[in-house]
Amino acid sequence: MKLVRYGSPGAEKPGLIDGQGALRDLSHVVPDLGPAQLSPDSLAQLAKLDMSRLPLVEGTPRIGCPVANVGKFLAIGLNYSDHAEETGSPIPKEPIVFTKAISCIQGPDDDVMLPRDSVKTDWEVELAIVMGSKASYVDEAQALNYVAGYCLANDVSEREYQLERGGTWDKGKGCDTFGPLGPWLVTRDEVADPQNLDLWLDVNGKRMQTGNTSKMIFNVVQIVSYVSRFVTLMPGDVIVTGTPPGVGLGMKPPVFLKAGDTMTLGCELLGTQTQKVVQWKAG
Amino acid sequence: MKLVRYGSPGAEKPGLIDGQGALRDLSHVVPDLGPAQLSPDSLAQLAKLDMSRLPLVEGTPRIGCPVANVGKFLAIGLNYSDHAEETGSPIPKEPIVFTKAISCIQGPDDDVMLPRDSVKTDWEVELAIVMGSKASYVDEAQALNYVAGYCLANDVSEREYQLERGGTWDKGKGCDTFGPLGPWLVTRDEVADPQNLDLWLDVNGKRMQTGNTSKMIFNVVQIVSYVSRFVTLMPGDVIVTGTPPGVGLGMKPPVFLKAGDTMTLGCELLGTQTQKVVQWKAG
Repeated sequence: MKLVRYGSPGAEKPGLIDGQGALRDLSHVVPDLGPAQLSPDSLAQLAKLDMSRLPLVEGTPRIGCPVANVGKFLAIGLNYSDHAEETGSPIPKEPIVFTKAISCIQGPDDDVMLPRDSVKTDWEVELAIVMGSKASYVDEAQALNYVAGYCLANDVSEREYQLERGGTWDKGKGCDTFGPLGPWLVTRDEVADPQNLDLWLDVNGKRMQTGNTSKMIFNVVQIVSYVSRFVTLMPGDVIVTGTPPGVGLGMKPPVFLKAGDTMTLGCELLGTQTQKVVQWKAG
Repeated sequence: MKLVRYGSPGAEKPGLIDGQGALRDLSHVVPDLGPAQLSPDSLAQLAKLDMSRLPLVEGTPRIGCPVANVGKFLAIGLNYSDHAEETGSPIPKEPIVFTKAISCIQGPDDDVMLPRDSVKTDWEVELAIVMGSKASYVDEAQALNYVAGYCLANDVSEREYQLERGGTWDKGKGCDTFGPLGPWLVTRDEVADPQNLDLWLDVNGKRMQTGNTSKMIFNVVQIVSYVSRFVTLMPGDVIVTGTPPGVGLGMKPPVFLKAGDTMTLGCELLGTQTQKVVQWKAG
């Protein structure tokens, strides 16, 4: 299934995309698409629905983040060998884990704001893992059973905040609007091989990032198992899995986003996002 | 007010401690003590209650974390100059910000589990700030207006995970049970000067940490203002503000927690916590 949440920010309704690509409403089936709806049992119930009987949604509403009430928004750093190289960083011996603030989560096509004093805001197309079950010390062989599905993410990053302001990366990863997720939560059954998905990102129509999840240093199974040894993963938690090469920081000289730019990004099976870059404004 | 949540884990009820130190129930006044109840208006409503008419709670129930539905659990590192010194770290030029996983939050007296393969689990008594209002780019002069109150925290830390496993500190800060908070959320009006509070922590009855919040490098006002420039703080978000000297990592040779140890800690005006240290077990 391709699960979606549509409508105004903060008032999104649950829905899904049917086999013909039409948006259908799930409001009368589930209250939302949050932790309680992402369990294997709940998803199995949804999968039994006769999609053709669900109400078609008129028009083209805004699409929100496909997961409601995300608890933790974790991230893996430098997880593509060629991206580690472009940033001048050594290949990590074990996954680098950092945290994005949940307050930065937004819909896939909402504007991305440059922080008020930002000088180095950058893009990162990524595959996001959405958890469906509580996972603590799970073996790699079992790890996928805890995953509800996947979505597309832009791990927007302010490089000066991340790298030059002391302390951990978190400072440059959680600014408002830095977490576009969606358009769809594609359930795990529809992604036969999460390690063979093409990813790309354009800025103003120019291709900047091209990659494939086969180039991950630590794959989805390893990430879920590894992270679950440090923090207990809960249903609705999201883990973004690192970015392929082609970020602004890696250009010679580096190139960063400015107001008026447009980012367009996509991942095979997971849809596309388009974000206009704007100056910070009070929310 | 001293606000509390009492009862079984996951089923806590709201309450408060009256002027005589007795626990009284707030279930018929508010559904819980979460983000919606921490706004200035909501707290002003609670302050108008005639405490003597609230039902007394019988017995001595378990006390939970005094804040329900914490959204973000942020932390400031190396924020006491003498603690920075004992860890061999330079004095930070600006606040070090890292993140604790919300899944590690627990009550003040619940057992602390050593992670399954932990070798360096350590203690850190801290003052925690609890946010009452949404704060984005707030000036220092206004910062306190966004704070609902304060509570005591033990920022339990696995030093090998934090410092020797690559990447950011987050890996060693969010293991299950690493976030005891409470017993009380003491509202801001009852803490005349958050920069003059004694803090202490004992392990097995031996005093390990002694400090006073006057020794913070960045004070509460500076922390709230600073963090709000990187992530938008929301009601119910918690920020722990760093620890005074005396952690296990700073001993010569270092000393870490083992199963059977007991930590007892306190902060002036904010109460005390006692945690038994136990081996990891499935939750």
